[in-house]
Amino acid sequence: MNDCLFCKIINGEIPATKVYEDDNVLAFLDIHPVNLGHTLIVPKIHSDGLLDADDKVLEQMIVVTKKVAAAILRGLGYEAFNLEQNNGKIAGQVIPHLHWHIVPRTADDGLTHWPGKEYGVGEAEKLAEKIKIEIK
Amino acid sequence: MNDCLFCKIINGEIPATKVYEDDNVLAFLDIHPVNLGHTLIVPKIHSDGLLDADDKVLEQMIVVTKKVAAAILRGLGYEAFNLEQNNGKIAGQVIPHLHWHIVPRTADDGLTHWPGKEYGVGEAEKLAEKIKIEIK
Repeated sequence: MNDCLFCKIINGEIPATKVYEDDNVLAFLDIHPVNLGHTLIVPKIHSDGLLDADDKVLEQMIVVTKKVAAAILRGLGYEAFNLEQNNGKIAGQVIPHLHWHIVPRTADDGLTHWPGKEYGVGEAEKLAEKIKIEIK
Repeated sequence: MNDCLFCKIINGEIPATKVYEDDNVLAFLDIHPVNLGHTLIVPKIHSDGLLDADDKVLEQMIVVTKKVAAAILRGLGYEAFNLEQNNGKIAGQVIPHLHWHIVPRTADDGLTHWPGKEYGVGEAEKLAEKIKIEIK
């Protein structure tokens, strides 16, 4: 994965402001933070997104994410955060190397969430059946 | 946790359109979907959010999330999705029982992402130090 920006950060070819590192996972500050302290969690083994990552890697990432998120709140005085992960360009993924965003939040940051729709009668049940038969 | 809506769904006291269930994790359709098929992943053991959940529970959740997300894409014909998890009212958490949102995406759904800021010279490094000393 020579052209992968995050692999280059992991390999030390490109600098990053690191906040945590172990044998499997690296955490560093996003250079364009939604709020100050916005941190990315990346696995050292490359995968493009969630679906092509090994379960073991995902388990390592989520445990580190909990640890780092708690440190961001304690260290920077936040009380709330969002955990976000984008899969695919359509979903806003910019770097095709699996990464989770920890976005600390304040009451007055003005950020809004996506609105919800309503299902028609029986529509949700039909969709659920289509999903259920694809669970593997 | 008698007053917890998601505990009531898990216990069968309130109906939900389920797509997956095992001994530890339940997945069901969000009743106000951002896009059709928007699914919630919840652990059966109550925690308010990510930080008070057991690591083992988080590991179980992320593996189920991968499995269910793949099924949503295959079953409903999506190619991209966001994984989101809100911690605290300020961060948009409505139900105080840990849950991850799988939000399938389309190119024309019109949903936008939060803009990024810029750090001043040396600012990121100072924040990183404050986070690092709180890693436990």
